[in-house]
Amino acid sequence: MSGPLRVAVAGLGTVGAEVVRLLHAEASLIAQRCGREIQVTAVSARDRTRDRGLDLSGIAWFDDAAEMARTAPCDVVVELIGGADGVAKAVCETAIDAGRAVVTANKALLAIHGPALAVRAEGGATSLAYEAAVAGGIPVVKALREGLAGNRIRSLFGILNGTCNYILTGMRETGREFADVLAEAQALGYAEADPSFDIDGVDTAHKLAVLASLAFNTRVDFQAVHVEGIRHVSAQDIAYAEELGLRIKLLGIAHQRDGGVELRVHPCMIGKDTPMASVGGAFNAVELQGNHVGPVLLYGMGAGAGPTASAAVGDLCDLARGNAANTYGAAVDRLATLAPVAMGLRRGAYYLRLMVIDRPGVIADITAVMRDHQISVESFLQRGRAPDDAVPLVITTHDTAESAIMDAMQTIDRLDSVLEPPRLIRIEAL
Amino acid sequence: MSGPLRVAVAGLGTVGAEVVRLLHAEASLIAQRCGREIQVTAVSARDRTRDRGLDLSGIAWFDDAAEMARTAPCDVVVELIGGADGVAKAVCETAIDAGRAVVTANKALLAIHGPALAVRAEGGATSLAYEAAVAGGIPVVKALREGLAGNRIRSLFGILNGTCNYILTGMRETGREFADVLAEAQALGYAEADPSFDIDGVDTAHKLAVLASLAFNTRVDFQAVHVEGIRHVSAQDIAYAEELGLRIKLLGIAHQRDGGVELRVHPCMIGKDTPMASVGGAFNAVELQGNHVGPVLLYGMGAGAGPTASAAVGDLCDLARGNAANTYGAAVDRLATLAPVAMGLRRGAYYLRLMVIDRPGVIADITAVMRDHQISVESFLQRGRAPDDAVPLVITTHDTAESAIMDAMQTIDRLDSVLEPPRLIRIEAL
Repeated sequence: MSGPLRVAVAGLGTVGAEVVRLLHAEASLIAQRCGREIQVTAVSARDRTRDRGLDLSGIAWFDDAAEMARTAPCDVVVELIGGADGVAKAVCETAIDAGRAVVTANKALLAIHGPALAVRAEGGATSLAYEAAVAGGIPVVKALREGLAGNRIRSLFGILNGTCNYILTGMRETGREFADVLAEAQALGYAEADPSFDIDGVDTAHKLAVLASLAFNTRVDFQAVHVEGIRHVSAQDIAYAEELGLRIKLLGIAHQRDGGVELRVHPCMIGKDTPMASVGGAFNAVELQGNHVGPVLLYGMGAGAGPTASAAVGDLCDLARGNAANTYGAAVDRLATLAPVAMGLRRGAYYLRLMVIDRPGVIADITAVMRDHQISVESFLQRGRAPDDAVPLVITTHDTAESAIMDAMQTIDRLDSVLEPPRLIRIEAL
Repeated sequence: MSGPLRVAVAGLGTVGAEVVRLLHAEASLIAQRCGREIQVTAVSARDRTRDRGLDLSGIAWFDDAAEMARTAPCDVVVELIGGADGVAKAVCETAIDAGRAVVTANKALLAIHGPALAVRAEGGATSLAYEAAVAGGIPVVKALREGLAGNRIRSLFGILNGTCNYILTGMRETGREFADVLAEAQALGYAEADPSFDIDGVDTAHKLAVLASLAFNTRVDFQAVHVEGIRHVSAQDIAYAEELGLRIKLLGIAHQRDGGVELRVHPCMIGKDTPMASVGGAFNAVELQGNHVGPVLLYGMGAGAGPTASAAVGDLCDLARGNAANTYGAAVDRLATLAPVAMGLRRGAYYLRLMVIDRPGVIADITAVMRDHQISVESFLQRGRAPDDAVPLVITTHDTAESAIMDAMQTIDRLDSVLEPPRLIRIEAL
């Protein structure tokens, strides 16, 4: 391993350009640490004329990223194009088939095609590394695959999308509504022009699927992940949560139970004093439960050019040092296929907000529905009076089956005195 | 790498026995993950007759741990004897000289003899791994050495001693004094019968020295670490901290600055809303500042058999997979020798608590001293009235040089109206 590790970078967007920049800026540090240099030998992007503030002299340019993956003189291809299919997938497959290792930040690709790519990589005795795909600069993939390798991981959960956490934090701090804070986040570059991928929970679900595969050494059916986003979280709900000693976060949650795996993404109310509740702004955090180590929480910037490039370069350093591990921490042909646990089987506490007419008998009607579904109410909150007008009624429950609360919600929704669709947020005891 | 990785365990105390137990309990999981088995082939402890609840059949027994390190049929020696010198050191040296890798949880040994052992290991082309030596089960050594290898680490700080954090948390939650809570911690097994190593900050300093060597790729002179413990933290100080929106934690702090390295361990007041402040009980946490990744915080159990064994087994899994790295993340002959930055050069805010006679002119005398040392006072807190009796006077300062506040303290201590030695706690803006 005396020669340099030769790297081809596919995609020169914010992150790709930053990887090239970081490898250049820290070249001597990295060589000292890895015992050899890491050199960018080739790059590929759509537009060669764009000024990225990069010195690309001496680096081969390819208009066609897959062509680069196949023919460039390199040991590793760093895929930073993005997208679950199309060019990104072709680049990774081509690189692996040509015997090159792949480093990627592409969670969508991994969530959907990860196991197939892992089979390909292991068949070709090469590596598929993806620290940058989950939780930005936080070395959680490494922690799961290596540091905690002696543990059975029972569960993990995390704040995996910085955009959602930024919005929820902003709503809490300012009391403003979702749409307002989203618009501000867009103006500041914390949210995309089309934010649906983030705010509808899809990005969190991709990352959760990747983490669950690794943590539980199992294949994950991405379609089986229960996904809800944060569009329906209102300023009212956030204020009520505070009053209840709780805080609203969009969590990705993975549990091994009943011989299967429960995978869900949705807004949660969690205790204000938990470490996870203190994760603010665009930060991410992941908490893992190992059977020997206990809880381990990792926290840091979940996105952005610097943190994401840091993670990709960490993977490159592993490769430069000759360190490798299986994609999912175990040979892919030994991965389990844990059955998804249906969402209806969740048991836990719930927060319900109803907009009701403030007149006699309403609470009696609602509590009758709860009783009929064997749901035990923990607290009622009703404030202000506005006879014959809509007032919020907040109910929290003791532990209840998800199927029961969903049935109860439907029945409640049909009551005359209930004026808007009920809002439900799950309360998680972390 | 088809055969098993053969492991000899030196020391069968709580952690040593747990390593043997964990490797046995998770044998198939570990083999699946590492692609080969990890087998305990030899053990050594002082008393062969003691019942440790372990099945040691088929495992060679050695009364002499160094003899085991030299002659046992093994690839790795796990040193869990402890102590900076004596048997532990002999075992590690002997193992390395015999070409075996060493896995150790021994921070005292590493803080003092780490670089010499690293030279020996690299000379013999073997590994010295020590995830278990710092922050128990938290994979912070791996994060620094590998995950964040593309970053210059500017600073790190952490809660590195679970005993101290348990005591400080207990004092805060119950309002009781240090001695009380220490006695309770001893009764519950959270503190040793002789607790000085923990509560005087020595253990934290050992861990800080190890982390700083790794983070900054430098040799550290352990004698140059400034160390203060928590014996003098009183219930009063904790109550005042709360009132000021602060919380008292024993932190280990390492900064690279002015071409040198600042290493200090002392009680700190930190903002109540910082992630570090939310680390309670026996938990540990380390926060790192990388120039690309930004802040990264890792949190988990800092001690105990399970977490420590988890870390040692993580190191064994690396060895089983054939993954290795230099002891300090870079070749030891390329480590820098950063000069220690003298404690007097610290700049920051300070909390001072004086016990003064409550009579006219006292505050004037004290503020005159502050003015003479060019110290800018941020706040005064004096409550209650007890004419001619001792009352606490709490002062917080704006950023000030440590040397100035120390001089001022001496002068203040000589004032007639000051009845007890002033208490100083540094306020850290994290």
